Amino acid sequence: MNTVTVDLGARSYPIHIKPGILNQIAPIIQGFSDSREVALITDETVSKLYGQSVLDHLSAAGYTTFLFTVPAGEDSKSYQYLEKLHTKMLKAGLKRDSLVIALGGGVVGDLAGFVAATYLRGIGFIQIPTTLLAQVDSSVGGKTGINHILGKNLIGAFHQPLGVLIDPDALKTLSVRDMWGGLGEVLKYGLIRDVEFFETIEQNLESLFSLSDMDQVSSMLAMCCQIKADVVSADEKEGGLRRILNFGHTLCHALEAVTGYDYFRHGEAVVYGLDWAAWVSMRFDLLDSNQYERIHKLIGRFELPPLPENLEADQLQAKMALDKKQTAAGLNLVLLDAIGSTVIQTVQDATDEIKGWLNELRK
Amino acid sequence: MNTVTVDLGARSYPIHIKPGILNQIAPIIQGFSDSREVALITDETVSKLYGQSVLDHLSAAGYTTFLFTVPAGEDSKSYQYLEKLHTKMLKAGLKRDSLVIALGGGVVGDLAGFVAATYLRGIGFIQIPTTLLAQVDSSVGGKTGINHILGKNLIGAFHQPLGVLIDPDALKTLSVRDMWGGLGEVLKYGLIRDVEFFETIEQNLESLFSLSDMDQVSSMLAMCCQIKADVVSADEKEGGLRRILNFGHTLCHALEAVTGYDYFRHGEAVVYGLDWAAWVSMRFDLLDSNQYERIHKLIGRFELPPLPENLEADQLQAKMALDKKQTAAGLNLVLLDAIGSTVIQTVQDATDEIKGWLNELRK
Repeated sequence: MNTVTVDLGARSYPIHIKPGILNQIAPIIQGFSDSREVALITDETVSKLYGQSVLDHLSAAGYTTFLFTVPAGEDSKSYQYLEKLHTKMLKAGLKRDSLVIALGGGVVGDLAGFVAATYLRGIGFIQIPTTLLAQVDSSVGGKTGINHILGKNLIGAFHQPLGVLIDPDALKTLSVRDMWGGLGEVLKYGLIRDVEFFETIEQNLESLFSLSDMDQVSSMLAMCCQIKADVVSADEKEGGLRRILNFGHTLCHALEAVTGYDYFRHGEAVVYGLDWAAWVSMRFDLLDSNQYERIHKLIGRFELPPLPENLEADQLQAKMALDKKQTAAGLNLVLLDAIGSTVIQTVQDATDEIKGWLNELRK
Repeated sequence: MNTVTVDLGARSYPIHIKPGILNQIAPIIQGFSDSREVALITDETVSKLYGQSVLDHLSAAGYTTFLFTVPAGEDSKSYQYLEKLHTKMLKAGLKRDSLVIALGGGVVGDLAGFVAATYLRGIGFIQIPTTLLAQVDSSVGGKTGINHILGKNLIGAFHQPLGVLIDPDALKTLSVRDMWGGLGEVLKYGLIRDVEFFETIEQNLESLFSLSDMDQVSSMLAMCCQIKADVVSADEKEGGLRRILNFGHTLCHALEAVTGYDYFRHGEAVVYGLDWAAWVSMRFDLLDSNQYERIHKLIGRFELPPLPENLEADQLQAKMALDKKQTAAGLNLVLLDAIGSTVIQTVQDATDEIKGWLNELRK
C-alpha cells in the first residue's frame, strides 16, 4: 500500500492507495473515527458498480449504513441536492459523530464534502474517489462545494476529510475520455513541480492510459497525491503556493463556460489550458521555446475533442474576468519558467494571448 | 474601550466594546483587512435604525459598499436567503478579498456569517451585533448557520469573524422582552463560570435592565465576552469545554420547539432553561438546595411570559431527543455543582425531571 500524508497539524490525514482497497475499507475507517453510523453518498453510475458491495462490506463490519444516491453529473452540485441530502440525513437520525463517505468522482466528492461541512456545523467525512480526476485532484485538499447558476464551484467551504482511500482498480471502469482527461491533471503535476515526473509521463503515457501495469499506475497516483499534499500542507486555503495548482485552469474554466459545460470533460479542457499556459509562458519570455515544444508535443499524444471552430478570444477573456481567482489587482496567471517550476504574473487582460494561441493552433 | 481577545492562534480576533463605536468602525475595520469592498448585511428593522449611517460612514472612509437587507425574523435563516444573498453578492462582483459585515441580531449574524463562510469557499466577515443576545452570545465564537425545516440551526459552519464590534448604545432601541431575554444569557455566564459575576447581576439586575449606567453595562458585556472567549479559545468546536455554554439550552430548545418558535423570545426560553437545569442539578444532589433557591429567586425578578398551561413533559422530552447535542450515548446535560461550576451528566430520558420541575412551578 502506498500512503501519502497531508500534513495539516491536528487535521492531518492519510491518503491510502491500493488496488482492491474498496472492499477493505472498514478496518481503515475504524482508525479514523469511533463512529458506527455511515452515510454513503454516491451517484447512480457508481452506485451500480460499487454501491452494494461497499454497503455489504460495511454492514458485515458492524456499521449502520444509509445509501444516498444522486443523479450522475454536474447538475447534482446544487443548492437543491445540498438541502435534499441534509433532509435525508436528518430523517435518518445521523448525528454529530456520524460519518459521510463520498464514493465517486469529483461531483460526488465536492457535494458530499460540502454536505458534511455544513451538516450540524460540520461532521467527519472520508473520500473514496473512483475517477482519475478525483483520485489525483479533487479528493485531496479539502475543497468542497456546489455550483451557482452564475458559475461553477462558487459556493463551498474548506473541509478536510479524515482520510482518502484510492483504489486504482476502479479506473478499469472509466471511459476513454475520462481517462485522458484525468491524465491531463496528472501531467499538470509534472509541469508545475517535478521535471522527473514529467519525463516519466512522457515515457509512459500510453501504458499509463491503458492501465497495463498497476504498480506503475499506483506510483503515478502516489506521486500526484504527494505533490498535491505538499502544496496543500504548505498553504491550505490558497493564500500563496496553492495557487500553482490552478496552472492551466484559467483558460480551462473559460473554455468550459463558453462551451456550456457539455462539450469538454473537465480534464480535457485542462489539457488545452496547460498548453495555453505553457504557450503564454513562452510568449512572455519566461519559458524556453524548446521546453514549450516538448510540452506541446506530449500534449499532442492525448486524445482530445478538437477546439470548437467558432471559439472567440473575446468571449474567453470575458469569462476569465469572472474567475473567482480574480482580485481587485487583476487576474493572477500561473506560468512556467521551466518544466517543473512556476511563476505567477498578474494580467489585466489576456485577449491577445488567447488570440495568438488560437491562431497558432489553427495554423 | 473594553477589548477582549478570542485566542485561536492565527485566527485570533478582538472584541471591541465602546458606546458610539457604530459610527467609528472604518479605522478599526482597516486594521482587520485591506479590503475596500464591503457587503453590509442587515435586516429591515436594523437597517432603518442604523443602516444608512453605517453606509455613509463607510463610504466617507473610501469603502465601496453594498447594502443587502433581509426581512426581520427567524424565517430569513433559510436556504432561500442563503442563495439569494450569494446571488446578490456575485452580481455585485464581490470577490475573495471582499468583506461581509453582519449588522443586527443573532439571525443576521448567523445568516451573514454562513453566507461569508460559503461564498467562494469562505471570505472574511465582521460581526456588529445590535441586540443584547447577539452581543453576549451569538456574535462571538464563530457559529454560523441557517435553520432546516426539521429544526433550528441544524445547518451551518464554524467560521470565525475577523473581529466583533459592540456598541452598548444600540441596546437603547431594544424592546423590553429582548432586553430581559438577553439578560438571561448574561446570567448563564455567571452560573457556569463566575460566582462573583453572578453576585454582580444579583445586586444590579434592574439597573442593568434599565441601562442607567453605561459603564456598568459595558463591563457586563465585557465580562460575558471574556467568559465566552475563554471557553471558545479552549475548545473551538464544542468537543469538550464549549458544551458548558449550552447550560440551560436543552430545555430552552425544547420549549421553543413545542411552542412553535413564536411564543418565547429565545432568551426568555433560556431563562426557563436555566431554572430547569439548576433544579435538575439540585434533584441529582449535585447542587445545594440553598444555592438553587438563590438562583430561582433571582430568576423570579425577570419579567417573562408565563409557561403555557398545556405544556406536557412527554412533548418536551420528545423534542430533546432530537437535540443536535444528542449522541449515540444519550443526551449530555450541563448541570451545576455550585454557582459558577458545571458538571456534565448523560441521561437517556429526562421526562421525570421535566414533570417534577413543572409540578414545582405550578404549585
